[in-house]
Amino acid sequence: MNELELVNRIRRGAGSAAWLTRGIGDDCAVLRAPRGAELLVTTDLFVEERHFRRETASARDLGYRALARALSDIAAMGGTPMAYFVSILVPEWAEKKWLDGFYRGMGAVGEQAGAVLAGGDTTRGEKFVCDVMVLGQTPKGRALRRDGARAGDAIYVSGELGVEARGKRVRFEPRLALGRYLRENRLATACLDVSDGLALDLHRLCVESGVGAELRRPLPVAKGVEEAVALTHGEDYELLFTAPARKMLPASFNGVPLTRIGTVVSGKAGRMTLDGRPLAAKGWDPFR
Amino acid sequence: MNELELVNRIRRGAGSAAWLTRGIGDDCAVLRAPRGAELLVTTDLFVEERHFRRETASARDLGYRALARALSDIAAMGGTPMAYFVSILVPEWAEKKWLDGFYRGMGAVGEQAGAVLAGGDTTRGEKFVCDVMVLGQTPKGRALRRDGARAGDAIYVSGELGVEARGKRVRFEPRLALGRYLRENRLATACLDVSDGLALDLHRLCVESGVGAELRRPLPVAKGVEEAVALTHGEDYELLFTAPARKMLPASFNGVPLTRIGTVVSGKAGRMTLDGRPLAAKGWDPFR
Repeated sequence: MNELELVNRIRRGAGSAAWLTRGIGDDCAVLRAPRGAELLVTTDLFVEERHFRRETASARDLGYRALARALSDIAAMGGTPMAYFVSILVPEWAEKKWLDGFYRGMGAVGEQAGAVLAGGDTTRGEKFVCDVMVLGQTPKGRALRRDGARAGDAIYVSGELGVEARGKRVRFEPRLALGRYLRENRLATACLDVSDGLALDLHRLCVESGVGAELRRPLPVAKGVEEAVALTHGEDYELLFTAPARKMLPASFNGVPLTRIGTVVSGKAGRMTLDGRPLAAKGWDPFR
Repeated sequence: MNELELVNRIRRGAGSAAWLTRGIGDDCAVLRAPRGAELLVTTDLFVEERHFRRETASARDLGYRALARALSDIAAMGGTPMAYFVSILVPEWAEKKWLDGFYRGMGAVGEQAGAVLAGGDTTRGEKFVCDVMVLGQTPKGRALRRDGARAGDAIYVSGELGVEARGKRVRFEPRLALGRYLRENRLATACLDVSDGLALDLHRLCVESGVGAELRRPLPVAKGVEEAVALTHGEDYELLFTAPARKMLPASFNGVPLTRIGTVVSGKAGRMTLDGRPLAAKGWDPFR
């Protein structure tokens, strides 16, 4: 397989969209900028032996996951995905069939999300490395940021925490519909996706907003997982958000529970407690 | 060094721009979409032991080069760069000082080009891997594509071919001003940047345009380099473009020579000759 063959295989699977003037095949992709909108851009690395082991999942499931992780960042901003770009390092073991499966997996979740493959880069590597960039949009000034939480806001999280500590789950649903619902109904003052564990991600939200947080049990911990693990394991891909206390939120959205877990407080930025005891900002750190 | 420290170091060096609503520090960067414009997106991998060896250049020069390579793709579309996003795999040897230098080198060429660092991702790796994504813009419908060459057009290339076959050059100037000049004056029917060697890149332009090419000597080969090497070595980062025969082009632009090297012809797409003899589409291929 040479580069041209690989690119042609990828190109055959790429989608099209009215606003995609030029996709794979040129120096750059060319996209029409949406009117009155702001653009969202996120990049997410997915690296063999860091984020996955190829023995544990099919190429399709891994491709699905690689893109779903980046889509989760778009969801956290209340955005609508448009296009994705994929740069890969291809090791010897990654044959045509495996790569086809990986791109098909990305294509599956991309299609669900309304995002088309529009470009990328490839070269040889010793391990499989995938960098996924997603371009999305929100109406101007309406993106759900991390820095809008105010003292008195209620703190919510979707779904369950610690599901992946039990292993096995590879595919998950990026909470795009929930993010858009929160944005359209102006329900959230701040939002992010829980990728490195609730404790660390809530800390980040608090630091960006210049606030503290008081959490109360019971937390929505997945069955069979210890609370301390559920708070720090990461890879939940749920939305953690704050909402003005007066806003009424439903108990669930599209079948996904929304649980109030605490309250935003003033004081030292990033300081967190759980039932009155200090909660440390521990979680997944690729550099530790 | 943990991830937070690294991200904070990178964040301190990031720039700002009126249209950058939110840079590093959230799930996504938020950018205001330029009115009446089309967006350009390119991604470029820069990998230790594939694209560079760290012993041979300073961190600053390597950072400069990593971003300049991606900016060259924006230049090839006649675009104006806006923002860049950098995903890196950080090996043990890459210490704070080296990483600071790398980001400063990117910052230097980014500033010259008018592009600000707006996001990215980081994780650990065994080799240094850098994926640079650049977002740029052009007025609607005006991007210089690869597929617009027509029989009878003249073929031009900027600068000299094969400079890097002599070694030593790390920094180069992305031809952004030339690309914009060609676009603004509607001089080019097709354009790309010569990154994998003139022979292979001209072939790509011809295939996308459905045309052939007849080249004539003398070609602008760098001193001390054999013609066959100059045509296939790659990493020239010059612009290769076609222009209607009636258009008068200057002999140089901003001190960079523009050399007419041949003519676009009808016939088999991608077929090339040099002084009447077949020219093979050979060049840099990371998979060979």
